[in-house]
Amino acid sequence: MKKLWIMLLLAGMQAYGQNEDAQQLKKIYDAALIEGKAYDWLNYLSNQIGGRLSGSLEAQRAVEYSKAQLDSLGLDRVWLQPVMVPKWVRGTAEFAYMETAPGVTSTIPICALGGSIATPLGGLKANVIEVQGIEELKDLGKSKIQGKIVFYNRPMDPTLISTYDAYSGCVDQRYSGAEEAAKYGAVGVIVRSMNLRLDDLPHTGSMGYGDTAVGDRIPAAAISTNGADMLGTTLKLNPDTKFYFKQNCKQYDDVESFNVIGEIKGSTHPDEIMVVGGHLDSWDLGDGSHDDGAGCVQSMEVLRLLKLSGYKPKRTIRAVLFMNEENGLRGGNEYAAQAEKKNENHVFALESDAGGFTPRGFSFDSSDTDLKKIQSWAPLFEPYLIHLLEMGYSGADIAPLKKEGMVLAGLRPDSQRYFVHHHAANDTFEHVNKRELELGAGSMASLVYLIDKYGIGSE
Amino acid sequence: MKKLWIMLLLAGMQAYGQNEDAQQLKKIYDAALIEGKAYDWLNYLSNQIGGRLSGSLEAQRAVEYSKAQLDSLGLDRVWLQPVMVPKWVRGTAEFAYMETAPGVTSTIPICALGGSIATPLGGLKANVIEVQGIEELKDLGKSKIQGKIVFYNRPMDPTLISTYDAYSGCVDQRYSGAEEAAKYGAVGVIVRSMNLRLDDLPHTGSMGYGDTAVGDRIPAAAISTNGADMLGTTLKLNPDTKFYFKQNCKQYDDVESFNVIGEIKGSTHPDEIMVVGGHLDSWDLGDGSHDDGAGCVQSMEVLRLLKLSGYKPKRTIRAVLFMNEENGLRGGNEYAAQAEKKNENHVFALESDAGGFTPRGFSFDSSDTDLKKIQSWAPLFEPYLIHLLEMGYSGADIAPLKKEGMVLAGLRPDSQRYFVHHHAANDTFEHVNKRELELGAGSMASLVYLIDKYGIGSE
Repeated sequence: MKKLWIMLLLAGMQAYGQNEDAQQLKKIYDAALIEGKAYDWLNYLSNQIGGRLSGSLEAQRAVEYSKAQLDSLGLDRVWLQPVMVPKWVRGTAEFAYMETAPGVTSTIPICALGGSIATPLGGLKANVIEVQGIEELKDLGKSKIQGKIVFYNRPMDPTLISTYDAYSGCVDQRYSGAEEAAKYGAVGVIVRSMNLRLDDLPHTGSMGYGDTAVGDRIPAAAISTNGADMLGTTLKLNPDTKFYFKQNCKQYDDVESFNVIGEIKGSTHPDEIMVVGGHLDSWDLGDGSHDDGAGCVQSMEVLRLLKLSGYKPKRTIRAVLFMNEENGLRGGNEYAAQAEKKNENHVFALESDAGGFTPRGFSFDSSDTDLKKIQSWAPLFEPYLIHLLEMGYSGADIAPLKKEGMVLAGLRPDSQRYFVHHHAANDTFEHVNKRELELGAGSMASLVYLIDKYGIGSE
Repeated sequence: MKKLWIMLLLAGMQAYGQNEDAQQLKKIYDAALIEGKAYDWLNYLSNQIGGRLSGSLEAQRAVEYSKAQLDSLGLDRVWLQPVMVPKWVRGTAEFAYMETAPGVTSTIPICALGGSIATPLGGLKANVIEVQGIEELKDLGKSKIQGKIVFYNRPMDPTLISTYDAYSGCVDQRYSGAEEAAKYGAVGVIVRSMNLRLDDLPHTGSMGYGDTAVGDRIPAAAISTNGADMLGTTLKLNPDTKFYFKQNCKQYDDVESFNVIGEIKGSTHPDEIMVVGGHLDSWDLGDGSHDDGAGCVQSMEVLRLLKLSGYKPKRTIRAVLFMNEENGLRGGNEYAAQAEKKNENHVFALESDAGGFTPRGFSFDSSDTDLKKIQSWAPLFEPYLIHLLEMGYSGADIAPLKKEGMVLAGLRPDSQRYFVHHHAANDTFEHVNKRELELGAGSMASLVYLIDKYGIGSE
């Protein structure tokens, strides 16, 4: 009989706990949707500042603006963490055409890939060899590649439901295409944009030369998906078609920049730190609204929503706006290095860097035990249509923090529209829906609340 | 021992069945994403035809175009089902302003509600009484309403995660606001647009006068959300503010139009009919891409995808493009009446009328037994991020078909952006994402396949 009473008592406490949590989540989501600031902040970052490439004036203005906004939230501490970042500058607008016969040309939209060298001052013109991937280079060999422009034209796979999977399946062409083609004597590379839609916008993104000697490096550019299809078709009809492109981008010396950090001190476990973050830098073609202005303003909003909801975190919660995710990851690395140096105990980190679209859930880099604990909260998330709580990728900036027993997480928004905008001139504010952005912030704050309340991190 | 063998055999057959179904769904989704026609069809409907209000030339062109496209699919039968529809015409552009002092005016974006009468030729100017809903009229009484324009200003509730719930909570103001206000001597009504976003676009939609005598009817218009906020604020500062509006819309006699129907004859149960549909008519302000061009092209695509995937349906599958959902539901009613008259046996109907956004699942009007059967297919849908299979609303056009034991279903796309576009000038093609539209078509075809294969419909 006594046992029954205890069981009833425990069941009652559990039900009460669930109910209290449900109310807390409703408070958080309601605040996000009724009195959210994320959208206004993003409007400023996007429309008053714009694209924020590392080392640019815009990046510095974004640091100052986001620090000032965090300062206004009444947090326990807000500070800038210095970090040296690469400074790559696009220069004047790129120009390209294909030439099917001497003087018969069609302009094709291109943009330099981030980190690329310039073409010679007068541009570069050569025959083109089309490949579907890096592995084809070996078979073709130096004889067929030497002196030519290599055209990487493997498209993203439209049948993959997660567009990130489709991206992962193609992005080696962009990142390593120039390094690999240079080994066979290519004089330049052009890469089909990482875009599932057929349109006229080239999508930039980082590339690297590995250990290619400076003198052997070749320029690399992205061409729009329509441009890639047109060039591919033309080459079939006329393999002697030439391609011309001109870009005068340049890598300067590293400059100082900053991670922007705001924190709420934990009430009972101040030494246990939970991070929620996004990256403040962006590519320069659009205004970086989805990638990753959205993640930054959502992370700032998490602190604000927790305060608005009246919740006092037991652990220290930090919003970290990382600098230089796009072309160096210096901010993420520096944050982790400083954490190591100061012997800080990070128990959890969550990144939003997949666009400001309707949130579908989170993926976790955690132990099975921790994942099970998180999955036990699924009923709390169900009213908000959050249905993915599974193992998977977290985020580039927080990855360097990973230690045994620590949990990393990534927000997983709907991915269907992301690569229409990713790294292109149309990654702009009007393509972010206010409610979708706010639901992401509410979901992130809810997860942080539950993890803070119930603890996480198994050995 | 024999029992064990049988059990293993049955388990094996079940696994084989699931595996075969998984492959069939993959075929369907792959076809939708690689060689889909829905987006091209929608492009034509939206950009070559445009808004398709019942009785308009555009509606007739949409009938002819969609029939021709169905004809090209090699179906077993394609036909037009005649139906008389109302013909309401907006006339010249509406005009409105508020007047805070004689001659001091600010223009406010409005549009006539569908079915409204015109204002007097020179427009209508009167004092304004703001209410948060119909129930307030009774308290105010004739003394405070007589001779005034009633301004319904209850906004959609942003904290409701399903925006349809927020819509349902407000739309009585639009539909019945004029009928109710007329009882208290109001001279006109203006209604806050059913839009969760603050912007300058008025959203139309149907309204009715009930049994109000013709001479007692008053004109009704929607005003944009920004306009509503501005008018509301102004009325607080100056309750004597007047509102002027002018519209010359008109109801004509009914005209003949058509439901467009295409079918694949069932191989073993041709008399059991499954319907998949959307509505071909739309409001006139935009081009009706989301509401409901999307549902029409997805329904046509279901037939095409089933053929492409090589599946031979046991039951008869019909795509029905209903006419006149927006302001009369004549198409849905006529289709059901003809089915009744011909004693046709409809076992299932699915409607897509919630926009061409990323599909999240389906809701069902069914018995518990049928729902359980459908929910047993959840693992097959999981790879496509379809996670909602639950009781709920199906669709306006198919509702008249409902009989005991029959299952109705509605596609449930992500709803966050829908009411930004719904019934407004920005319900246009560029706001439909190709992949999102295609995933909806793939999901619908997959559900139709599973229901055809395993049967549905309990007593």
